[in-house]
Amino acid sequence: MAAVTLPFRTLAWEGGIDGRFIVLDQRLLPGEKKEIVLDTVLAVRDAIRSLAVRGAPALGAAAAYGLVVAAREGADAAGVRRCLREGRVCLASSRPTAHNLFWGLDRVARADDGAEQDRTRLLERLLLEARAIEREDAAACDAIGRHGLALLPDPVRAMTQCNAGALATCGIGSALAPLYMAHAAGRDVAVIARETRPLFQGARLTAWELAQAGIDVTLIADAAAAHCIARGGANCIIVGADRIARNGDTANKIGTYELALAAARHGVPFFVAAPRSTFDPAMRTGDAIVIEERPGEEISVIGGRLRVAPEGVRCANPAFDVTPAELIAAIITEQG
Amino acid sequence: MAAVTLPFRTLAWEGGIDGRFIVLDQRLLPGEKKEIVLDTVLAVRDAIRSLAVRGAPALGAAAAYGLVVAAREGADAAGVRRCLREGRVCLASSRPTAHNLFWGLDRVARADDGAEQDRTRLLERLLLEARAIEREDAAACDAIGRHGLALLPDPVRAMTQCNAGALATCGIGSALAPLYMAHAAGRDVAVIARETRPLFQGARLTAWELAQAGIDVTLIADAAAAHCIARGGANCIIVGADRIARNGDTANKIGTYELALAAARHGVPFFVAAPRSTFDPAMRTGDAIVIEERPGEEISVIGGRLRVAPEGVRCANPAFDVTPAELIAAIITEQG
Repeated sequence: MAAVTLPFRTLAWEGGIDGRFIVLDQRLLPGEKKEIVLDTVLAVRDAIRSLAVRGAPALGAAAAYGLVVAAREGADAAGVRRCLREGRVCLASSRPTAHNLFWGLDRVARADDGAEQDRTRLLERLLLEARAIEREDAAACDAIGRHGLALLPDPVRAMTQCNAGALATCGIGSALAPLYMAHAAGRDVAVIARETRPLFQGARLTAWELAQAGIDVTLIADAAAAHCIARGGANCIIVGADRIARNGDTANKIGTYELALAAARHGVPFFVAAPRSTFDPAMRTGDAIVIEERPGEEISVIGGRLRVAPEGVRCANPAFDVTPAELIAAIITEQG
Repeated sequence: MAAVTLPFRTLAWEGGIDGRFIVLDQRLLPGEKKEIVLDTVLAVRDAIRSLAVRGAPALGAAAAYGLVVAAREGADAAGVRRCLREGRVCLASSRPTAHNLFWGLDRVARADDGAEQDRTRLLERLLLEARAIEREDAAACDAIGRHGLALLPDPVRAMTQCNAGALATCGIGSALAPLYMAHAAGRDVAVIARETRPLFQGARLTAWELAQAGIDVTLIADAAAAHCIARGGANCIIVGADRIARNGDTANKIGTYELALAAARHGVPFFVAAPRSTFDPAMRTGDAIVIEERPGEEISVIGGRLRVAPEGVRCANPAFDVTPAELIAAIITEQG
């Protein structure tokens, strides 16, 4: 199978323990493709908090590398351990609801067995664990891509929501992975990206990364999805997931549920692509999933700059919705 | 029944044939409530073209008054008739696909029987017809409001799309008319307005006019509608219409179809409110309705100012979609 190579990297660690932690600054997309070096733990925290780097799988690796950046401030093994503890508190305050972020911090912290007395070997051990997180995520993306590829119709006319692509992971994405693989395999692939209000991740990120990869992409307003499906514009839907309950009910970016309803009405298969870590065994059904309510200003003032609603109007801004399992044709994970 | 009074007017003619044609400048909403006087036919054309005044029923009256503004440039009856012809051509070029606009021009032009030789009496005849158009539309809104009121659940928790309100008509609106009447009658009314991408009529206009009237309004992203309905946030949906086929299939602002799908899934009644003139006897079903495709820049650059998508990305921007008759609980007109 042809390898997928993308002309950008979401994050990277260059060199050894004295090396550089680099992220693509997604705040500047799609206008500018600029990598930034994050050389202090505060810089990493602020980059995560301000969405320079985002996406659940990518956040796990970013937090892990951020903890290495924090730890190497220590002058000796004891200092490294002190910086590790402080760095963990600092990074945990960046996006407190991001599950993968805490998971990444925990893995790197646990990589210290408490016995190593050599500063360099201790830091190398931490860096090795952060690298493993990145590599495992990239491998999971590839596996999701392979499993998903087998399910795609031919030609591929896929619609997607938000950004569950390379920019959200350390690899070729979750929802977009099968599409990248299909394109690399020479299949006829075209993608419809919903813009994804209020933060426009579909417009700013998905349209950008697919265009970078040379994949045919068309951007639509969220509200145009059902019309496009009704008029035959899409023959499959593929989205990521933020949390999946035991019965398969799936929480994902707001608007996913209505997309699933439109797909069901017109007999278009609706796929969810997500790593196994997205499954939440504590949730029996989607009804139990608490939906994050974000600031109303994201609705009333576009991009923090352009007011479109009257001053003082009340806005409801749920960030996610729940798609019932019965509307989902398949959930694609790295295990199939 | 309590009368509905709104603290703004969409358009008005003050005085006699030497009077003033005034519109509320909707381009400045919701930031500024400013009326402008349109004292030349070019000013009327530009106001229509740039959406200072919009909405199918309002456009019929605006075109009619605009033709009076044009005609009174004539120094005698013959001059009035020449200005009438030229004004008609000018105004017809403002928004060439707006059906009501041509209907308004035709009615005023036909009010000249060709025999009147007195300039003043001829102009008075034209103005009388324009006033009749305005009054008839206001009366139709009231009738839609009365008929719709009987269908609303109690309390009213209505969701609407785009702006089919007072700002789109010469009266209290089509979709919003029953809501204004319910509020005036002292019933418990709350409205959820979808923002309505790409042009934000829900955010800019519907949220504004409902707030002006003292009605409880909550703004949501278009993509949050199904979630809100699923969680019990709305007990009825009421929207306007741009064109209704003989079988009841209804073209309305893009996003209406998916709203109807979500309503059907959750057993929430979905109402269409529109004057009889919206019915198109030439269309057997909605499949025949041609959907206007608007410029992609409305998607990629918000409000002409804020770019959210990569340069050069292809955008599809259908302005309307078609909701099948089977998803519509009732179509409310001025005749019931």
